[in-house]
Amino acid sequence: MPSPTPHRRRDYPHHLPIATRWMDNDVYGHVNNVVYYSYFDTVINRWLIDEGGLDIHGGAVIGLCVESRCAYLRALAFPDALDAGLRVAHLGRSSVRYEIALFAAGDDAAAAQGEFVHVFVDRASRRPVELPPRLRAALERLQVAPA
Amino acid sequence: MPSPTPHRRRDYPHHLPIATRWMDNDVYGHVNNVVYYSYFDTVINRWLIDEGGLDIHGGAVIGLCVESRCAYLRALAFPDALDAGLRVAHLGRSSVRYEIALFAAGDDAAAAQGEFVHVFVDRASRRPVELPPRLRAALERLQVAPA
Amino acid sequence: MPSPTPHRRRDYPHHLPIATRWMDNDVYGHVNNVVYYSYFDTVINRWLIDEGGLDIHGGAVIGLCVESRCAYLRALAFPDALDAGLRVAHLGRSSVRYEIALFAAGDDAAAAQGEFVHVFVDRASRRPVELPPRLRAALERLQVAPA
Amino acid sequence: MPSPTPHRRRDYPHHLPIATRWMDNDVYGHVNNVVYYSYFDTVINRWLIDEGGLDIHGGAVIGLCVESRCAYLRALAFPDALDAGLRVAHLGRSSVRYEIALFAAGDDAAAAQGEFVHVFVDRASRRPVELPPRLRAALERLQVAPA
Repeated sequence: MPSPTPHRRRDYPHHLPIATRWMDNDVYGHVNNVVYYSYFDTVINRWLIDEGGLDIHGGAVIGLCVESRCAYLRALAFPDALDAGLRVAHLGRSSVRYEIALFAAGDDAAAAQGEFVHVFVDRASRRPVELPPRLRAALERLQVAPA
Repeated sequence: MPSPTPHRRRDYPHHLPIATRWMDNDVYGHVNNVVYYSYFDTVINRWLIDEGGLDIHGGAVIGLCVESRCAYLRALAFPDALDAGLRVAHLGRSSVRYEIALFAAGDDAAAAQGEFVHVFVDRASRRPVELPPRLRAALERLQVAPA
Repeated sequence: MPSPTPHRRRDYPHHLPIATRWMDNDVYGHVNNVVYYSYFDTVINRWLIDEGGLDIHGGAVIGLCVESRCAYLRALAFPDALDAGLRVAHLGRSSVRYEIALFAAGDDAAAAQGEFVHVFVDRASRRPVELPPRLRAALERLQVAPA
Repeated sequence: MPSPTPHRRRDYPHHLPIATRWMDNDVYGHVNNVVYYSYFDTVINRWLIDEGGLDIHGGAVIGLCVESRCAYLRALAFPDALDAGLRVAHLGRSSVRYEIALFAAGDDAAAAQGEFVHVFVDRASRRPVELPPRLRAALERLQVAPA
């Protein structure tokens, strides 16, 4: 299994600083593989809330994760300061495929990179719905031309 | 993006009960997507410890996650009782690709299914090493014939 | 700071098995101090849901934690099997003070013991409300006579 | 149970920004009570590492938590930006009692405040040891005169 080529900071139009926590580290002294996904979750939802108008408490439309994945290229550890890059690889009628990369401070090559797919649904019925215009506009700003 | 076909209980040679926790649920009332990976982590490491002789505290060989993924097919929620199925899809010289599925009580179709790749390394140098014989034997017992 | 006297299993009228998870362990090889509170949370809410009729998704009354504490007496570690003892130390008009103890398998002395105070509030207004009768009855069953 | 008087920012000599994460929120839409302790853990260990020379990976002396508590005064929620105040209430031969408060951005009154006691032990024997001089000096800088 060859490792993927690490993404670069410039490959991502949006970056969010991520502060590691003591309990992110596991027995082997590095951030546990599970926790990387909480960083993914956070950079995505911050964008949806701050830029897309997502109302996580009472909005009619919510995003449910239907798929995620991560490739771990270099170990990270508390108390490292990180940042998460975010871009949109595919924007559908009711779904979006994000790509995320995590960078250690001062490093241009990603320590981890992955994907995350949201389907937007009606909060009550949990049926897929068309992306609200403001959310779509925010996600379009993260679309990158295919390399 | 078509959903994958859900795996069945009988597709997995080993099952471990998983108890959900209050804090596993997120704002939307279901187990957060991140937490699924902690169930993966747990069923895998329990097998390695119980059957393969892995010593997480002081052993010379440890397993590092280099890749993981999950497809979320049906929502799970605390206080559901779950169980995790585990099998080995590929066993290399120093790495193993597991497949994991999560089942809600009384349900034969997986609510989520995914993959997880461990590379076994020397604890100090973090260089890949050959799988110790007892660990390999334990993993061979989880290998399934290709469908 | 003298350590408190460990509680015993018989001091608690209700016990729930708790399965540790790989990521519960921290860098020092033991369950992180934070995670103990997730065990507290879980034994309490399971009782409220199973016995007291608490509806965490849509019920009019919810319990908010206003205070918690824990004394750590002996280290616990994944993959230990634990159980959590639960009792009610004080039952007020709208609040309840629980006591919780965690026991390692085969051990009669608590590895950790603590307290947790819930105030029950109206879900919408977040104002304290009187405990619903079924919830109160369930909590009364956990009251113990002062030693 | 009367609520304690909220501490103020000026009561704390050291502050660390804390970024909330999506999964910190629970079903009720606020940061789960358990997660507050991970903020405590983080501000304390960052100080010990950055100022006190604590080496969490290989140092001979490590800090184990023997007691913690928290009073929850006002709800916090992702995506709030927080900061954690830290001070030392008691410094013993081998132990330290910290006080911690969490502040929402723009708020001078603590949303939560608590305590955390570390006993410093030898990593191998887990027996209490005298605080190393550099660590002691760092903790003395956080001591406050009794009010």
